[in-house]
Amino acid sequence: MQEIERKFLVNNLDFKKEASSSNTIRQAFISRHPERTVRVRQYGNRAFLTIKGKSSEDGTTRMEWEKEITIAEAKQLFAVCEDGEIHKERYLVQLEDFTFEVDEFFGENKGLIIAEIELSSANQAFPKPAWLGKEVTGDVRFYNSQLSKNPFSGFSDEIYNIP
Amino acid sequence: MQEIERKFLVNNLDFKKEASSSNTIRQAFISRHPERTVRVRQYGNRAFLTIKGKSSEDGTTRMEWEKEITIAEAKQLFAVCEDGEIHKERYLVQLEDFTFEVDEFFGENKGLIIAEIELSSANQAFPKPAWLGKEVTGDVRFYNSQLSKNPFSGFSDEIYNIP
Repeated sequence: MQEIERKFLVNNLDFKKEASSSNTIRQAFISRHPERTVRVRQYGNRAFLTIKGKSSEDGTTRMEWEKEITIAEAKQLFAVCEDGEIHKERYLVQLEDFTFEVDEFFGENKGLIIAEIELSSANQAFPKPAWLGKEVTGDVRFYNSQLSKNPFSGFSDEIYNIP
Repeated sequence: MQEIERKFLVNNLDFKKEASSSNTIRQAFISRHPERTVRVRQYGNRAFLTIKGKSSEDGTTRMEWEKEITIAEAKQLFAVCEDGEIHKERYLVQLEDFTFEVDEFFGENKGLIIAEIELSSANQAFPKPAWLGKEVTGDVRFYNSQLSKNPFSGFSDEIYNIP
């Protein structure tokens, strides 16, 4: 299926008050190539293998294929991943009929918080809470595949006003 | 699971008389990295996604994870693979309690025939028919992942006395 999503930095921690759930995510990559990433993810007690294709020119659409795997399979696949595991906590925030996935990163990406929303079309209107910051849709640096290699701690830009 | 296999070039086409079946294989790679290859394969009417890890030092053992996928999923995944599809015919040859998988390559790898046998230990004895040629176990050039990039037609060695 094609996914259409927009991605934003987050201005403050107020989103946590609105979150309906949170889960720990551990993930790593077998391929970090932006046109064909292969991701192994443990999400709470479940695990998934996900393959993503090349992004569309506006960065909103990307082929995505995903299969649930067992925790034992994930363990086997984590062993062959490239260095650079990502650890984060994912909060789900429901606003109107939309769900924001808000990821608070740890380790070398500590300080980075990213909110993502899935839309049915690239220009669909959606709620914009006060904690929602600068849009980074299509900015390759904020792909998890890139953050695992070039983490947020090495970013120099002053535009990321993260709490 | 770990697979222990030995790989050989093939001297002539006599193996076809002994083959119990043959199937057309089309395959391509999402990752060709020798320590983490990701392969999409259509095998007759079935399709598979396979991830292989790093080979042991003697080249006989390698982590292998495989899941059957639908032909529709394979089509979706072929679209994101790297260039360099491999097309070959796989013959199964039963000898004693062993099965040789003999792959006759087409396209840019035409002329290359490789036989593989799976063993329960690296030094297990096995039948050696007259058509079985030089051993190439562990020779990275004969990995399908490498043949898709640097095909047999470009090999210059005179040691490959292929029919």
